[in-house]
Amino acid sequence: MKHLLSLEDLPRTGIESLLGRADGWRKTALSGQQPRQPLTGRTVVNLFFEPSTRTRSSFELAAKRLGATVLNFDMASSSARKGETLADTLYTLEAMGGEIFVVRHAVDGVVAGLAEVCADGTRLINAGDGRSAHPTQGLLDMLTIRQRKGRDFSGLSVAIIGDVRHSRVARSDLHALRALDTGEIRVAAPPALLPDASELSGCLVCEDADSAVRGADVVMTLRLQRERMEDGLVASLEAYFRDWGITPERLALARPDAIVMHPGPMNRGVEISDAVADGPQSVIRDQVSNGVAVRMAVLEALVAAA
Amino acid sequence: MKHLLSLEDLPRTGIESLLGRADGWRKTALSGQQPRQPLTGRTVVNLFFEPSTRTRSSFELAAKRLGATVLNFDMASSSARKGETLADTLYTLEAMGGEIFVVRHAVDGVVAGLAEVCADGTRLINAGDGRSAHPTQGLLDMLTIRQRKGRDFSGLSVAIIGDVRHSRVARSDLHALRALDTGEIRVAAPPALLPDASELSGCLVCEDADSAVRGADVVMTLRLQRERMEDGLVASLEAYFRDWGITPERLALARPDAIVMHPGPMNRGVEISDAVADGPQSVIRDQVSNGVAVRMAVLEALVAAA
Amino acid sequence: MKHLLSLEDLPRTGIESLLGRADGWRKTALSGQQPRQPLTGRTVVNLFFEPSTRTRSSFELAAKRLGATVLNFDMASSSARKGETLADTLYTLEAMGGEIFVVRHAVDGVVAGLAEVCADGTRLINAGDGRSAHPTQGLLDMLTIRQRKGRDFSGLSVAIIGDVRHSRVARSDLHALRALDTGEIRVAAPPALLPDASELSGCLVCEDADSAVRGADVVMTLRLQRERMEDGLVASLEAYFRDWGITPERLALARPDAIVMHPGPMNRGVEISDAVADGPQSVIRDQVSNGVAVRMAVLEALVAAA
Repeated sequence: MKHLLSLEDLPRTGIESLLGRADGWRKTALSGQQPRQPLTGRTVVNLFFEPSTRTRSSFELAAKRLGATVLNFDMASSSARKGETLADTLYTLEAMGGEIFVVRHAVDGVVAGLAEVCADGTRLINAGDGRSAHPTQGLLDMLTIRQRKGRDFSGLSVAIIGDVRHSRVARSDLHALRALDTGEIRVAAPPALLPDASELSGCLVCEDADSAVRGADVVMTLRLQRERMEDGLVASLEAYFRDWGITPERLALARPDAIVMHPGPMNRGVEISDAVADGPQSVIRDQVSNGVAVRMAVLEALVAAA
Repeated sequence: MKHLLSLEDLPRTGIESLLGRADGWRKTALSGQQPRQPLTGRTVVNLFFEPSTRTRSSFELAAKRLGATVLNFDMASSSARKGETLADTLYTLEAMGGEIFVVRHAVDGVVAGLAEVCADGTRLINAGDGRSAHPTQGLLDMLTIRQRKGRDFSGLSVAIIGDVRHSRVARSDLHALRALDTGEIRVAAPPALLPDASELSGCLVCEDADSAVRGADVVMTLRLQRERMEDGLVASLEAYFRDWGITPERLALARPDAIVMHPGPMNRGVEISDAVADGPQSVIRDQVSNGVAVRMAVLEALVAAA
Repeated sequence: MKHLLSLEDLPRTGIESLLGRADGWRKTALSGQQPRQPLTGRTVVNLFFEPSTRTRSSFELAAKRLGATVLNFDMASSSARKGETLADTLYTLEAMGGEIFVVRHAVDGVVAGLAEVCADGTRLINAGDGRSAHPTQGLLDMLTIRQRKGRDFSGLSVAIIGDVRHSRVARSDLHALRALDTGEIRVAAPPALLPDASELSGCLVCEDADSAVRGADVVMTLRLQRERMEDGLVASLEAYFRDWGITPERLALARPDAIVMHPGPMNRGVEISDAVADGPQSVIRDQVSNGVAVRMAVLEALVAAA
């Protein structure tokens, strides 16, 4: 693995190997041990063209725990580029000694484009590009499912509910769930928020939230960007919550041991109710913790491959 | 001590113990020794909902000197929350591994509210909430007085002059001075900038600056926010300086060995004159140095209590 | 050397000594060795009153590689000062433990002014002030020339082309080239972008780009700020590129082994063409790498002198 651009590029064994390593880092953290520091002396650059304090912080903590020097290069709020091309920005940071770049950009495919022009020794991690992919989020979601449901996903029914159309999180989850041979992948969203059918191969499209949740082992709900309302794709937050929000009543349709996931940040009362978010079936904070562990595993794997 | 929310919660012995530890860190710094690093492997999160480069930097240096990993989470300029509740932001950072949170917020009581919902192992430090409290500033001010005037405050006359009404610094100073049984606490301000009488128990309210300064051992002046003029609470900066500013003429009324303090940043020519700010009685830079030492002591105490 | 304010203050031997040390750091980096860390326990403050993610990052990496604790104090986007004087900002950061200050400011001479008021043990590095000086850029340019053309500059012809008038980079390059007894220094710019003649002592002023490039060993082109067009100093970017841009056709007039330099960030198609920027004669990425090495050498020298 030279870069991590999308989970589409990773075979099942590759995903499982990363999850295994991440599980190890998670256990090290819980044990309170000082971790090994395989990135000592390495420079990780957080190159964010879209602001994201949350994802950036998760990568920053992961890299620092591995001993790396971290440089935050926030292009969203900086005038650093002043007309410079994206590739020149990358070349400049490579020339300063940057080795691993964690890149977020609002435009689909930009990170893959940088992978074509970067130096031979450079490693890129896609931290979210447009609506395309957010592979470390996909991995942390799989790790969270695995911790609760075991390694064999073939008997699981996973429901993804919400704005799948605009979600890079959902796309990476779909790639990973398929790669891990998940028993049933259900997708449910208002029509305007469903993706093109070509993206849903192998998925069961459900016409409403209840039928998606019924009997599911895993209920993943997605953040609803408020822009969707401004764009007229959603009539009102109240109606959305009534029809698509995960409430205790709706969750009661799922298996009794079903888990509920959300990539955060949550809009409480829009896509999820307080009682579910804070309830015993919620694994939302585990997702965040697993995020740091997954990013440690990815950073380590990329350095080992260098 | 689980959190440091306000000096009201601390008994005299608690304050004196922290001052003693801070004095030790100050001496380590002056000796040029590398300090012990009791926070190695710990993660300190600077969670600032109000911008403050100065206080954030002081905490950042304190934490780094103790060996901590520091994550700056600047909510004032970030879009990280995007509708997320304050508690969810905290839960997310806890799940990432944040252990000690240094929190500043514009609204009174917010940090205390977070203390009610945080995880058991989490430690919170109030770095300023609304007009209520700024306890590390109160501690650094006491440390500065103690270094010049000795541990026994019972013979001291301390004058606090300026916008006490809107000042969390003054509130924390008042708590600390009372806890340390200060001989006389004098307060002087234009009527519109005096707090409610209920907050001045044990204080001598002076009608003008001269009577507050006369014979004082310690003269504390406060920053005048320019908003006060816009709000009509102060007629003009010139008149304010004439009536309430600390000038050499006014300072001559105090004891010859009186010290002058200011929490910074200073408006020279408004609440203090150049000659006083840079004069031999000013201990303003000591306050800043003591700030780092006090924060080291607080961080260490919270970790030791964990 | 107490501070690095301008290369005007440095004799030839001082410059050559720094270049020698920087070359050593460059080789350490290329060898993949962990460098010595002579700044362990030291605090370097990046005090930027003008935004510059690029230069700030270069200094940050240099300082961290030497083991320093780095504090980024971004005054351009912060409300930290709130009316505070520049000197008080410096005094505050000194009192917190800042020892080496890397300062950028939009006004000429500000860094030199701080050098007059700072504490005895403080060390200042000018990271660019107004149009006056950017000494580490001058040094990194000299290191880049030396790596390709050898230590003896007396046989070299160096052409500087572009907006010399507004460029602190060009001023520092001119100081360094003169100090190193460069054979011929040529300067070419549209009349409105030429500096006063008094600044061009020892330079050959060329009337057009072709005559400056013809037979040159080194072609330095400068960034054209878009403000120059708004100010009416440049008619159009197209005309500028035609008359002053470095294209393969123009570069063919130089010596076959001539190198092309640019301080970045580049406006491709304005002051330089893609083919030249990415071509075999371009040493632009070497300049960036040398920037980190030069800054390591300067930081080390200032600490050694303390």
